[in-house]
Amino acid sequence: MDVCQVVGYKRSGKTTVMNKLIRHFSANNLKVGSLKHHGHGGEPAMVNGTDSEEHLKSGSVISGVKGENITQLTLSSPLELDELIQMYHRFPLDLLLVEGYKQAVYPKIVLVRNETDLSLLQELSAIIAVGTWDVRLPISSSYPVFNMNNLKTNIPALADCIRRDV
Amino acid sequence: MDVCQVVGYKRSGKTTVMNKLIRHFSANNLKVGSLKHHGHGGEPAMVNGTDSEEHLKSGSVISGVKGENITQLTLSSPLELDELIQMYHRFPLDLLLVEGYKQAVYPKIVLVRNETDLSLLQELSAIIAVGTWDVRLPISSSYPVFNMNNLKTNIPALADCIRRDV
Repeated sequence: MDVCQVVGYKRSGKTTVMNKLIRHFSANNLKVGSLKHHGHGGEPAMVNGTDSEEHLKSGSVISGVKGENITQLTLSSPLELDELIQMYHRFPLDLLLVEGYKQAVYPKIVLVRNETDLSLLQELSAIIAVGTWDVRLPISSSYPVFNMNNLKTNIPALADCIRRDV
Repeated sequence: MDVCQVVGYKRSGKTTVMNKLIRHFSANNLKVGSLKHHGHGGEPAMVNGTDSEEHLKSGSVISGVKGENITQLTLSSPLELDELIQMYHRFPLDLLLVEGYKQAVYPKIVLVRNETDLSLLQELSAIIAVGTWDVRLPISSSYPVFNMNNLKTNIPALADCIRRDV
């Protein structure tokens, strides 16, 4: 299972790019997993009053609900990215797309919405491509650049880049 | 990690007994995991429009959201009970309480709400105790019986039985 990150500051378009990439790869018969890191101390949205929530309130460290087609596991145990990735490895996935975790070491797409976001290109490791909305990269940058104003053309091109370089 | 099931027909009190047991064990410093099998083809309740749901719709096989304290994994891959239990084994849990999966082979508490539920005692394997609400068991039955009308006394007694016999 390959791992590729999609990172960028808030409102840089990560959610859109993640969903488009998942859709593209799935339509091309790749088995894709996804993981989103909630920034700013948020928590996953849960439905109030469900058994899952009640079990957590009662003290369950991991509360699971198995439905007919969907299984949901809610974990109140602290988990590092690498531990989470190990869990995904149990499944026959081709690719795990990770949104966020800027400082992690996996190959990553950096989204650059504004000129001020360009500093990310100096700070982050293992960048394989950059997605921009009308921001010109410095001439010294050698990353492949995909214009996210044209998602229809450039999501497939970005996906090809991920398949080639991850 | 020990595994104990809580089984019974619909409306036999499984949800109540599960929550009380989780609360009791957690208050006694055991690390407890829980897993509920949704009967009748239901699915876990999800919040509409979340990233997790959007990723699944886009084709993600496993969609995870990592918050500050809570991580939620939603899996659209079919999973057998034993595969799920293997996932719980990755965590430092003392006990996994499983609601449902009557036909599974793990040590189990059977809840008997009505006389007609007594047939379960013939049909199921690995029964270690019975919880009843005013139903008298046949004299031939040798299982320890806990009256669930008195949860305050009998949940701790049932918990002791689980710790001893699982």
